[in-house]
Amino acid sequence: MTKVQVNLGENSYEIFIGAKLLGEVANFVADSKNFTKKILIVTEENIFAKFGGELTKNFSQAGINFEVAKVPDGETSKNLHEAEKLYTRAINFGLDRKSLILALGGGVIGDLAGFVAATFLRGVNLIQVPTTLLAQVDSSVGGKTAVNHELGKNLIGAFYQPRAVFIDTETLKTLPEREIKSGLGEVVKYGVIADPDFFSYLEENTEKILAGDEKIFTHIIKRSCEIKADTVSRDEKENGLRRILNFGHTIAHVIESETNYQKYRHGEAVSIGMIGAALIGEELGKTKTSDVERLKNLIQKLGMKTFCEGCDPEKMYLPLFRDKKTVGGKINWVLMKNFGEVEVTGEVPEKIVKKTLKNIAV
Amino acid sequence: MTKVQVNLGENSYEIFIGAKLLGEVANFVADSKNFTKKILIVTEENIFAKFGGELTKNFSQAGINFEVAKVPDGETSKNLHEAEKLYTRAINFGLDRKSLILALGGGVIGDLAGFVAATFLRGVNLIQVPTTLLAQVDSSVGGKTAVNHELGKNLIGAFYQPRAVFIDTETLKTLPEREIKSGLGEVVKYGVIADPDFFSYLEENTEKILAGDEKIFTHIIKRSCEIKADTVSRDEKENGLRRILNFGHTIAHVIESETNYQKYRHGEAVSIGMIGAALIGEELGKTKTSDVERLKNLIQKLGMKTFCEGCDPEKMYLPLFRDKKTVGGKINWVLMKNFGEVEVTGEVPEKIVKKTLKNIAV
Repeated sequence: MTKVQVNLGENSYEIFIGAKLLGEVANFVADSKNFTKKILIVTEENIFAKFGGELTKNFSQAGINFEVAKVPDGETSKNLHEAEKLYTRAINFGLDRKSLILALGGGVIGDLAGFVAATFLRGVNLIQVPTTLLAQVDSSVGGKTAVNHELGKNLIGAFYQPRAVFIDTETLKTLPEREIKSGLGEVVKYGVIADPDFFSYLEENTEKILAGDEKIFTHIIKRSCEIKADTVSRDEKENGLRRILNFGHTIAHVIESETNYQKYRHGEAVSIGMIGAALIGEELGKTKTSDVERLKNLIQKLGMKTFCEGCDPEKMYLPLFRDKKTVGGKINWVLMKNFGEVEVTGEVPEKIVKKTLKNIAV
Repeated sequence: MTKVQVNLGENSYEIFIGAKLLGEVANFVADSKNFTKKILIVTEENIFAKFGGELTKNFSQAGINFEVAKVPDGETSKNLHEAEKLYTRAINFGLDRKSLILALGGGVIGDLAGFVAATFLRGVNLIQVPTTLLAQVDSSVGGKTAVNHELGKNLIGAFYQPRAVFIDTETLKTLPEREIKSGLGEVVKYGVIADPDFFSYLEENTEKILAGDEKIFTHIIKRSCEIKADTVSRDEKENGLRRILNFGHTIAHVIESETNYQKYRHGEAVSIGMIGAALIGEELGKTKTSDVERLKNLIQKLGMKTFCEGCDPEKMYLPLFRDKKTVGGKINWVLMKNFGEVEVTGEVPEKIVKKTLKNIAV
């Protein structure tokens, strides 16, 4: 087992990474005086069938009382209505402020359970147990919680830190290949925004990555969490630096909404969005052509998406301005300067954005 | 105009108190670089009719774009459904993270608008403009926001600080006498928990208070805000000290729920609850009989409630345990030691609580 520390003053916590560590959650809860031993597990039917037994096997020995709240599969569960049902469960179970909510699942479960933990009784304890690569390297770390509004994704939420994150690398063994590749979109991003050596490491290990090598994945998850943790530690509430995590996401969000969140997984849209951001940088003379090529090559070698199929570039321009990071009508574009170095700018001419959208849509 | 500073590190803000200062909000917003000049005003029909003109008269000159979202009158509006309607208004108006939500009204408006501000886009700027005495001396200060769940009051919420609070003492002139007296419940509480001189001041000025003397009320509001601000500054998230603000509230919450939030205003229930807490302290030998009498006398002189009419003491015991401050099945009772000094204890025998409930119910 390896650990990554997230430094956020009194909200600091650790990310535990390793194989077969689900059973450790019981000790973590039992050893702390900060919790009453009552846990509402928020999860999804299939996920709980796979990992619930391992997770809860030590609970009774540790004196932990728990209930399981199952949420229907998929992004459509991430809404206020499901949140309200979870509040009801929490009230009837008698959860108090020192009790815990545990999110066992992918990004949808983590975001929804996190939002409920942030807002029930003005905040109860939260433990994240992400079971997809995307959630492990991105959404479970950093304290963003949210539900969707019918007019847009993640428009309702809170910054709320978990007490701990448990990443069991075994969970990846049963994850569909497409989900792995979606997660790799965010992994590649960390190389681009913060660590050229990590980018090279990914280039050198594409075959082992595609073969699902456990050691490689443990390193990938750890390094991704470190970069995210470091960025979040320096800017918890997204006032500045944290925006670099948005590399590739401005266009990705529009790809997702234009295809009704059906066609592309989040990380797939991020892959395409990163190429878009690199192309914009190239047009502005900020990103070297050779760097754009290296990025494109890695994404292709990993079998990830580089074009948005079935996207209408004409329809994608205006929705860009609906991004949460848009302030005063200016989009905060994250552009690549070198591997490991990005810059945030509001100054990208409409013409260049539109040209780029045409280049990434087919 | 007088000011009270709330010290909460980077979340610090000022409370402005004075007559006719609604027009100042425009300058406050225009002078700050932290805001985009877009304000969603959350209010209630009658309140906006009274104060909306004064509040917004300088907006266009200051380049402030605003919309008004009116919420139906009363506690029943404080729910997720009304919150969802406000999110929709905010999205359609194009509110971004640096825009503002302004709460103009009493506690219901402040709590609901505050919750929406805390959770829309994971937090937008909030300005509180409380128009009832209760909201001015209590709910608008300290960052508690909430909506109700059908199973209980304020069960969903967040700690979220406003950027400023504007208290216009003129608003009290049109406030019904009953609302003034409800607010005085919280005012008396501040004397008990933190300031014996302030308690004496209230005793010496009952006649002027009842006559609505503006100078006296300005002092009362200021001193109440100071005590609340000081307490909150030392314990923003209610881990310890802040619990003293709950004096009288443990029983008050049960009185409110037992009478379906219809019969008693919050501050009226707090008056009765304070007498209950004083009687429990007396039974335990912590509160002097003469202090119980002084408290009862002041409450009576101010024309406030001392008994819960139509309450069934038998039905009031168990619901005490549903309080948000109950942890691990222990109620955190706030008891009076001397004027200006309280203690929090989980050790009150069931028999004494039940006897007290009988003594305050008729």
